Amino acid sequence: MTTSKKTSSPEQTPLEEAYPTTVEGLVLEERLGYALRRAQLKVFKHFDEAMREHDIRPAQFSSLVVIEGYPGVTQSSLAQTLSIDPPRVVSLINSLEERGLALRVRCKRDRRSHGIFLTKTGEALVERLKGLAEQSDLEATQSLSEIERRQLLTLLRKVYASEEGGD
Amino acid sequence: MTTSKKTSSPEQTPLEEAYPTTVEGLVLEERLGYALRRAQLKVFKHFDEAMREHDIRPAQFSSLVVIEGYPGVTQSSLAQTLSIDPPRVVSLINSLEERGLALRVRCKRDRRSHGIFLTKTGEALVERLKGLAEQSDLEATQSLSEIERRQLLTLLRKVYASEEGGD
Repeated sequence: MTTSKKTSSPEQTPLEEAYPTTVEGLVLEERLGYALRRAQLKVFKHFDEAMREHDIRPAQFSSLVVIEGYPGVTQSSLAQTLSIDPPRVVSLINSLEERGLALRVRCKRDRRSHGIFLTKTGEALVERLKGLAEQSDLEATQSLSEIERRQLLTLLRKVYASEEGGD
Repeated sequence: MTTSKKTSSPEQTPLEEAYPTTVEGLVLEERLGYALRRAQLKVFKHFDEAMREHDIRPAQFSSLVVIEGYPGVTQSSLAQTLSIDPPRVVSLINSLEERGLALRVRCKRDRRSHGIFLTKTGEALVERLKGLAEQSDLEATQSLSEIERRQLLTLLRKVYASEEGGD
């Protein structure tokens, strides 16, 4: 409301020069949540570029890999494995089915339940995508040595695979 | 609907047992993009729980910390520093302003430009949030030792802070 609080003289350093471009020196630099998000966005950006030709999103790639490894997997099991909300898995599988990459097959024993399988096209594509994803990881983390990359992977796994402590 | 759906002989392995619950043994385990996303989701889940009382999202927290460190920062500089789309920063600052945590002040020299400042309420809140965020990081990464947590932070910074190599 008061207009007199900024009576800076022209000699004063232009405001622009005091502006940040990185979080260096701020407490954000010390926060794992922040660092994880920034690193993840960077790696996903590379992934999206690598997969553009095939129009594949990260969750579609992950699903194809799990279906390849576990032919006949159910939607609920896929949701649990990838930690994705079940409704999102339904639309994910719909998109893979529409593109002829995967298909739902009704189980003989439990006719309400469907197993998901890759089509021949899906099998061929996932092979190609696995190579692209590996290459994309390497490109996004060029600043790391091979040993550092391995360390990072090990530490991340330790974070996401650990059981939540009960409290 | 059918009540006779479980007529499998006891010898038969239930299908469920062949289903995965983790990505162990799949190539996803080796992908940094996947590991980053899973770890980030876990750490953000803790963050959201820690901040629930204050109704603060990660990007709001980051913004408050940058504004605290650089009083008078412009929206475009904030967007660049946090790697957030400029339109999203506008709505972010709107939300902080509506809650009385920050305010835009018109620059004397360039009247089209606004500097962002914390209010007294914002200053008090960010102090409290910084402690909560630190505690949340620790809880989300209980499975890491202090040295491992430090290593992880260093590696993540190396990933996100590196310049993109020209190819």
